[in-house]
Order: sequence, then C-alpha cells, then structure tokens
Amino acid sequence: MDRIKWTDKTNMSMLTDFYEFTMSKGYLDDGNADRIAYFDLFFRAVPENGGYAIVAGLEQMIDYLQSMRFGAEDIDYLRSLGFFDDRFLSFLQTFRLECDIWAIPEGTPVFPGEPLVKVRGPIAQAQLIETMLLTTINHQSLIATKASRIARAASGRTVFEFGARRAQGYDAAVLGARAAYIGGVTGTSCTIAGQQFDIPVFGTMAHSWVQLFDSEYESFAAYARSFPTETYLLVDTYNVLKSGIPNAIAVAREILEPAGNRLKGIRIDSGDLAYLTKAARQMLDDAGLTDCKITVSNALDEYIIRDLLIQGACIDSFGVGERLITSRAEPVFGGVYKLSGVEIDGQVIPKMKISENVGKVTNPCSKDVFRFYDRETGKALADVITVVGEEIDESLPYEIFDPVQTWKRKVLENFSIRRLLEPIFINGRCVYTRRDVREIREYCSRQLETLWDSVLRFENPQNYYVDLSEELWNVRNEILHNHRDNTI
Amino acid sequence: MDRIKWTDKTNMSMLTDFYEFTMSKGYLDDGNADRIAYFDLFFRAVPENGGYAIVAGLEQMIDYLQSMRFGAEDIDYLRSLGFFDDRFLSFLQTFRLECDIWAIPEGTPVFPGEPLVKVRGPIAQAQLIETMLLTTINHQSLIATKASRIARAASGRTVFEFGARRAQGYDAAVLGARAAYIGGVTGTSCTIAGQQFDIPVFGTMAHSWVQLFDSEYESFAAYARSFPTETYLLVDTYNVLKSGIPNAIAVAREILEPAGNRLKGIRIDSGDLAYLTKAARQMLDDAGLTDCKITVSNALDEYIIRDLLIQGACIDSFGVGERLITSRAEPVFGGVYKLSGVEIDGQVIPKMKISENVGKVTNPCSKDVFRFYDRETGKALADVITVVGEEIDESLPYEIFDPVQTWKRKVLENFSIRRLLEPIFINGRCVYTRRDVREIREYCSRQLETLWDSVLRFENPQNYYVDLSEELWNVRNEILHNHRDNTI
Repeated sequence: MDRIKWTDKTNMSMLTDFYEFTMSKGYLDDGNADRIAYFDLFFRAVPENGGYAIVAGLEQMIDYLQSMRFGAEDIDYLRSLGFFDDRFLSFLQTFRLECDIWAIPEGTPVFPGEPLVKVRGPIAQAQLIETMLLTTINHQSLIATKASRIARAASGRTVFEFGARRAQGYDAAVLGARAAYIGGVTGTSCTIAGQQFDIPVFGTMAHSWVQLFDSEYESFAAYARSFPTETYLLVDTYNVLKSGIPNAIAVAREILEPAGNRLKGIRIDSGDLAYLTKAARQMLDDAGLTDCKITVSNALDEYIIRDLLIQGACIDSFGVGERLITSRAEPVFGGVYKLSGVEIDGQVIPKMKISENVGKVTNPCSKDVFRFYDRETGKALADVITVVGEEIDESLPYEIFDPVQTWKRKVLENFSIRRLLEPIFINGRCVYTRRDVREIREYCSRQLETLWDSVLRFENPQNYYVDLSEELWNVRNEILHNHRDNTI
Repeated sequence: MDRIKWTDKTNMSMLTDFYEFTMSKGYLDDGNADRIAYFDLFFRAVPENGGYAIVAGLEQMIDYLQSMRFGAEDIDYLRSLGFFDDRFLSFLQTFRLECDIWAIPEGTPVFPGEPLVKVRGPIAQAQLIETMLLTTINHQSLIATKASRIARAASGRTVFEFGARRAQGYDAAVLGARAAYIGGVTGTSCTIAGQQFDIPVFGTMAHSWVQLFDSEYESFAAYARSFPTETYLLVDTYNVLKSGIPNAIAVAREILEPAGNRLKGIRIDSGDLAYLTKAARQMLDDAGLTDCKITVSNALDEYIIRDLLIQGACIDSFGVGERLITSRAEPVFGGVYKLSGVEIDGQVIPKMKISENVGKVTNPCSKDVFRFYDRETGKALADVITVVGEEIDESLPYEIFDPVQTWKRKVLENFSIRRLLEPIFINGRCVYTRRDVREIREYCSRQLETLWDSVLRFENPQNYYVDLSEELWNVRNEILHNHRDNTI
C-alpha cells in the first residue's frame, strides 16, 4: 500500500503558529523576505535530567516540507482574517521551498545545545516552517528518548509499547510507536503503526474477554481454541495464583498439549509484580511449562522495571503504556528554533539571542557538529560545535575547553571524527535517502554503545562534553562583549 | 472548505490495539461475536487531584465511527501476520457499525466513575472500537480539563493557547487547541485550528524578528509599518525596561500615533513577570498608552497565573504553552473501557471486574447518569448512577448515600434532574446534531457555574457526590458477595 503520510491531513502547511505568518508578511513588507537567514533547532536540557536524548522525527519533517503548499481555501481563510494583503497571499500561493536543510540522522544520541536541524534560506520561508519542525522533532525525540531509557532498563528483555489509548491524539499513538521503536522497544500494540512502519505488533486479550465468559477457564479455553499456536492468557482478572495460573495450566494440559501446542505465555496486569511473577514462574515450571513466557504490564517505566529485575522478578517481557507514550514524567521536549545568522553580500553575519537569563543565550553562526570517537575503544569522547568551514585534522591533537570555565581544558588524541549534520534539502530539493525504521533502530542501538556508562545512567549522569570550537567561542564572546558595551 | 476530519488519515480504523483484533476473532470463533454487550468508558480520578473534569472529543469520536471500514490494504496486512483466517477477515471487510452509543455532551463537567460514553452492540464490534474511543476522549478531556483550570485562574482575562510546538504530534496541537477552547481559553496560535474549528487565532512576532534587524527600534518600526492597526511588540529580546518598553513607546509616538493608530500591546516572555508588568504598565501609562495591553508568556499554568495576579501583576492576557497543550503536570487522562453487561435472551446480565484492588472494581449494568440541580440556586447537588429504566420523580424527596460508607445518607428535595447520557448512535446510525465549538465552549462555561466553589478549588477540592442508586448498589453488592462465596 501507499505509505500514509502522517503529516498529510491533506497537508499540514497551515499547522503553524500565527506569528509565522505575521512575521513573514512583515519581512515581505520591509524588503527582507529574501534575505538569507540561518536557524538552528536545538534543545537546552535532556528530559528527566538524563545524560542523552535520541533525536527522531526527521522522516515526518521531510514529508511535511515536501508537501508544503497553500491552497485556495487556506488563502481564503487567511484573507478573511483581515491581516494580510494580496501581495503576501500571493507569496503564499506561489510558495516553493528553497531552503537548504541539514539534520542529525534519526536515532543519534544528541546533547543540549547541538543543532539537531539547521535551516538556511530566505527568512520568510525559514520562519514559516518553524512550528512544524519543532512539533515534529520535539514529539518524536521525546518518545525515542524515553523509550531508550525503558528499553535499557529491561536489559535485553522484550518491551512492547502498549500506550495508544493514553496517547495525546492519533499521531501521538502512531508516531509515538514509531519513535519508541527507534528508541529501542521491541514492538507495539498499535496495529496501524505496525502496518505503516513495519513494526512488530502484539496483543492478546483484555479483561473484558475473560469477563464475557461464565468462567475464567472457559475464557482461556476459547482463546486457546481460537489461537492454538499463539496462546497468551491474561491471568489477573480474578486472582492470579488461586485462579489465573491454575486455569492457564489446565488449559495448557487439556486443550493445547493434546494437539501438540504449547502455552506461549501469560500476562499479569496488576498486583505485586515481583511476588506474583516469582510464584507464577514456580507454578508454571512445576507444571512443566518452563517455556511459557511471563509478560507484565501496569504503570511501568524504567525505574519500576529496574527495581523489579533487582528484586528477582521472573519476567520475560514488559508492556509499557502511558508512561512511555506520553513520557509522563516529563512530557515536554523543549526544542527551540533560533536565528543564528543572516547573509549580507554573501557574508554570514552572526546573530544570537542575548538574554538576561544566561541559559537562554544562543550560539551564533552557521555551524557544524563533530563527534570525536576514541580510536581504540570506539567510545564517544566529546562533541565540538564549530563554525562552518573549520577543518579538524584527525592526525593532530585537538584541545577542547569548557565554554564557561574556559580554564578547564583537555587534549584529545588518537580520535576519529564524524560530522553529525547531514544535508537533507538543497535549495528545497530533498537529498535524503529514506531509511527503514528497523535500520534506524539498529543504528540507534549501535550509537548508544559508543556512550560511556556514566552518560547512560538514569540519575545524575555525567555531562557529556559539548564544547565550542575556539573560533565559535570567540565570535560568541565578541558579540556578548559588544552588546554589553553598547547597552550598559 | 470541507472540514478536514482529524480522525481521517484516509481513516483510522486500523488505529486499534492489536488485541481488539485477536479478541474479535476469538468471539467469532466461539460463536459470541453477535452477543450484545455493554461497555462503559469512564475514568477513576481527576487529573492533578482536581474536583472535576471536562469531557471533550465527542465530535472526533463520531467522525471515526462514521468512517470505520477496513480496506483491501488493511485486510492484506492483517492476513500477512498469519493470525487471522478468511472468516474473520471477511467479517472485517463487511464491517458496518451496528452499535448503540450514548455519551455525555462535550463541555460537561464530569466526575470519576460516571460513564462518559456507553456502548451497546455485538461484542466483536463494541470491542474493536475501544482503542480509538479511549484515545479520542482521553486526549481531549485531558486538555479541556487543564484549560478550564487555567482559564479560571485568569479570572476573565484573555488566555491564548500557544503550545503547538511542544504538542505531542499534530493532532495534539490541533485537537488540543480545540479542547483548550472548549475548556475556556480565548483562542489559539495554531492557525489550522482556527481555520478548521473557527477558533480565534493570535500571534505577532518571535525574538527572531527583533534579532533580524540592526536594532530593536528598527524591528518595532518595521512591524508597526506592516501592521499599523494591530501592533503588538515583543519587548524582552534585550532588556524589557531599559530597551523594550522605551522603544515601543517611541514607535507608538513616532510611527503609530502620527497616522492615527495606537500601540495595541506589548508581550513579555521572560523575567519576573510580576515586577516587569507593573513597571511596564507605569511606563506605558506615563506615556499616555493606557490602552496598550500587556501580554505575558513563559511556562505559565494555573498556579503561576494565580500567583501573578495575587502579586498585583498588570496583565491583560496570558499566552500559555507546553503546560497546557501537554497538561504537563499530569499528561494522562486515565479513561478506561470496561464490560458492564451482556444480553442473554433479551435480558441484561450484569458484568463487573472484580479486582483485588478495590479501586479497580467496576460498576455493572446498563446505566444512566442523572445530575440533580437545586431548584433555587441552580447549583449541582449530586450525580446518581442508576440502572437503565429506573425513574426518578422530581416531585418526591430522593435519598442518596455513599456507596462505601452506606450510613452516610442525605435526602435531596426541591431538585430538578437532567439525564446526562444522550443518544449518539442508534444501530450504527448517528443521531447526534453537531454543535459549533463556540456553542460547546459557552455551554461548558454555563455548566461550570452550576458547581460550588468548593468543587472548583485547584487543591483539595470537595468531592462532588457521585452515588449509585439503591438498585444499582444492590446488584453490585450481590455480585461481589456471590463472587466471594464462590472463590474464597
């Protein structure tokens, strides 16, 4: 089937903050519309004080950009508001994307301050696409990051994303399942996400199935007859150990095994999962059902999963719902989109936001991001943000320094470097080769292995080094000092 | 233009947890598929320990149900998984909704345990629609509830929803804006939500506008020239009091006023909003700009808004972003969908989930919900959940009692009652008359006025009475006792 584009609800060009339109009109009126501007999409802090984030959403960002257009009904609506003149409306009507766009590939571990997406183009265009770029990258990066934490807590066990019913809307369910898969979960209960993105799907029965029948045994028997080779039974509708497990064992013996089938698994969705899974495991093993898998669900996250495993719970797979699909503990990925430069006579004039709040001061210039890997261990040592055009010689030592405590310096040697930002659009034409989500997921998993454990820790991780090149630091510092001299 | 259906991405019939399919097949195999079942969609706790929730999402639920169908590509996908036989696939292929569905109208204040949606139909159908009903109602009720709190905190001041960029996906931005409007905000920055749902839109400029120009004054001047009758200026790019406000005043004097225009407003997006707005108000008033409105934004929610107003901040309108559009403090509305009965020979056999966890025990039977209003004050006194068919005589006293502490009783007199559940589908045919969101918003606002202040309080509100009728209580109690006698 044709891939449904999740950005395309006919199209999402009108999903933009109204101020993108007012600013674009303003640029047009002031003669600035075609001035080439640079914007960075970056985030300031990892959710839940984690050590890294996983960037995701690039494919849907591309879908959006490729389908951007303003139809007659959009123009009519905007005209009806009384804010916009014919000149601006005809600018929209003939809109054709001309931007150059770079991005860090989906599934890459990323850190605060790094441009995840960089846009260069006529400012009236580069401004108009802000909202959709942010919505897309913020949402999927949030979920991929949370999924990565949860999948790591499960230490190689199966994790299914079960959250569609608690997702914040339909895209949140479907693209959330996609992002969760990139971040490391094994599959999803969300059928359309499986269909659209070729993600493994899973699901068996709800409590309503068990309740419909006159007895739990009958309900299990009916399921076993309907799915003899894929029988997974939900055993906690009444009482897990007194009723659920004994009935599951009885159905295995009386219905599945006579026909040469095995009970594939049971699921527990309530109660003390450590106690219940240990007792259930013992009962199943005693009945010769050592191959019967135990799945648990119910308000799980990385912390509960970690604790259950520390307590010796006997769990083969986890179903994770609302705490993953909404990233409940921190449901916001705070990506922002900031002007970093404008071209005047072909020269890039650096721009930065100078805030009283030092955390909100941005980095100027058209930039690159390099990741330094240790040649021996393969581990990531640091990222350095440079001004575009700077070259780094892998054969020479390279000194990095803390951009605030500049006396904190470190010389990197025997490293290889990788340029993280890849070209996605050139003059509005897409040059990105689409990747299968399975491939992105494997890439993400390999990239995580390049991070030290200290960065991966859930709580109080080490800060991974993200430094500025000396050149970039100097430009930034100069602007800050000039500004201070001018205004105070 | 034709209204875009937000559930229709062609259509969302495949957005369902995989277990809805396995169960439906199982019902078919066991001969139960056409057995008439009853399901209730309800929630167990108000987010953030609030005193009430606002139900929303009904219109999108209807869109989904009206467009349900399984196309050839869906059937092919399901066949490819190897779980489903031709009989089930042909059941899907010829699917036509035959359910009866009732719902509490959008915008109604609702309370834990009440059926927000009630479904009666062949179980294989009623089960299949579970996920989308939950996703739809959970998401919009979450945001409408949060918006209601925030709008109340603003005490009649303007509140704009500004969160699209932090929303969890596109629907979350657009349907979130819809739900926020129902809940009481004044408008949205999300243009497509304005376009699709006729919600007021608002927006002016970002910091990037100010940065692009060589000076803040120039940037303000350019905006004033482009939007002379709608000039709102963002004054915190450099320094609000030393630069932003003085430049805004200068532009008002030098550009707007000579042409007979006024400076409409300024926006402050950072810093101490209480201090800055008071100082800004003074400066604007001193310059004769008493009609210039002050808008603030930056991580606002109902608590910060309340505190700012208590501290005497001079604010005319609030822009609220991520804390509204994700309901950040509690991003999950925990609606569930539970079997409450099945028909056998035309008789409804009550069903309930009996959990070790008493909070998870459900209410059996096909039910109605009545709201009792005091005839004198118009205030809502209590809701009573009854078995369908029970009549309540408004001319007689009615005794309610706490379903747990049954000795706590209260006699209601001089009341009028309202049946909250309205028919939406009869035998799969929609009988609901669509309402404009503006109308729903006004209805919500009027309904809120029927609640006592003690229920409206943000923290530690009084529990509004939601009681069971004596008949319903008896059925429930009997099932619980029979179950105990059978299993312990």
